[in-house]
Amino acid sequence: MNNTDIDNINTRHHRRMQRKKELMDQKIEAAQRETGVLVINCGNGKGKSSSGFGMVMRAMGHGMKVGVVQFIKGAMSTGEEVFLRRFPDEVQFHAMGEGYTWNTQNRERDIEKALAAWEQAKRFLSDPEIGMVLLDELNIALKYNYLDVQQVIADLDGRPEMQHVIVTGRGAPPELIEVADTVTEMQVIKHAFKDGIVAQAGIEW
Amino acid sequence: MNNTDIDNINTRHHRRMQRKKELMDQKIEAAQRETGVLVINCGNGKGKSSSGFGMVMRAMGHGMKVGVVQFIKGAMSTGEEVFLRRFPDEVQFHAMGEGYTWNTQNRERDIEKALAAWEQAKRFLSDPEIGMVLLDELNIALKYNYLDVQQVIADLDGRPEMQHVIVTGRGAPPELIEVADTVTEMQVIKHAFKDGIVAQAGIEW
Repeated sequence: MNNTDIDNINTRHHRRMQRKKELMDQKIEAAQRETGVLVINCGNGKGKSSSGFGMVMRAMGHGMKVGVVQFIKGAMSTGEEVFLRRFPDEVQFHAMGEGYTWNTQNRERDIEKALAAWEQAKRFLSDPEIGMVLLDELNIALKYNYLDVQQVIADLDGRPEMQHVIVTGRGAPPELIEVADTVTEMQVIKHAFKDGIVAQAGIEW
Repeated sequence: MNNTDIDNINTRHHRRMQRKKELMDQKIEAAQRETGVLVINCGNGKGKSSSGFGMVMRAMGHGMKVGVVQFIKGAMSTGEEVFLRRFPDEVQFHAMGEGYTWNTQNRERDIEKALAAWEQAKRFLSDPEIGMVLLDELNIALKYNYLDVQQVIADLDGRPEMQHVIVTGRGAPPELIEVADTVTEMQVIKHAFKDGIVAQAGIEW
């Protein structure tokens, strides 16, 4: 490319970006409502829980207090748990599961654990001091009907107005998606596990 | 339901979970290779960068040193930046962008910034002390051809064997997806912004 070509590319880029900025400004102008949001990360792909913990980090950066309840996880120590336990004044961390359903193999005990975890979740959902609540793998407890989705929705509805809630896990029930503000489906394009790579510290746990 | 029905449900659940555990054990047995992985978070949905920062948190929980380069972000302070600057011995944080392309509107200057950010990325990619490198929004710099994808891939290939790299942003180039280990596409099911809710502290930044 000669200099004139490059100049043309740069000029076209500038014009395209000016138009895009006008559109973006209009959208931003239209979106000014401040409220606590309900975010759901579902799907089979990687990134559901890690995205939740990334938002926990952001919230901590803004000085918010955070409550974490892990519904299925709890049988083994994870990087996120070790890390967040360093900040007992900022984060209350409760890993209240006993492992995946195929490891526990005991529906009655899973239900007991899920109900206890929901009691903890409710304590966070009624505390206006908590700016963000992460309910990790809650979708799985709902998928197996360990918890009643209508009761869960009622408790979420009753939370403080500015409190954010993040729900993660495969199989989010349609009723929960309906009442959520932001829902992302993590889709697998490829996964290292299928190529024989073990779940790596720092990446998966 | 009477007690016999519930017993039946519980027994069926137990049998199904036993079978699932056998399958999972086989898969875990087959996946034992330890290596640094290249993870890509792409797509238009929420969760790409936040998942990256969640993995940063996990890595820190495992005592790894982390390097972060933000390619587009840098014009405004974010929760993740404020938070991670608390740990200068654990995380090196470089926000080297000047905002989205429609804000900068200057292709030549964007390229200059992207090249400088890649120089910093290369320093991390040649340092075996760094266990995880997060290249936030790198995909956008590649999509606009601000950086040469083949050069980027060559530099990624040459990194220490156990180093994990996370790349985020819309529009991941096919060549990069090809060489990655784990790729997730974040798909929008719904987004609060469209309902008039402003980008919320703790959630989006």
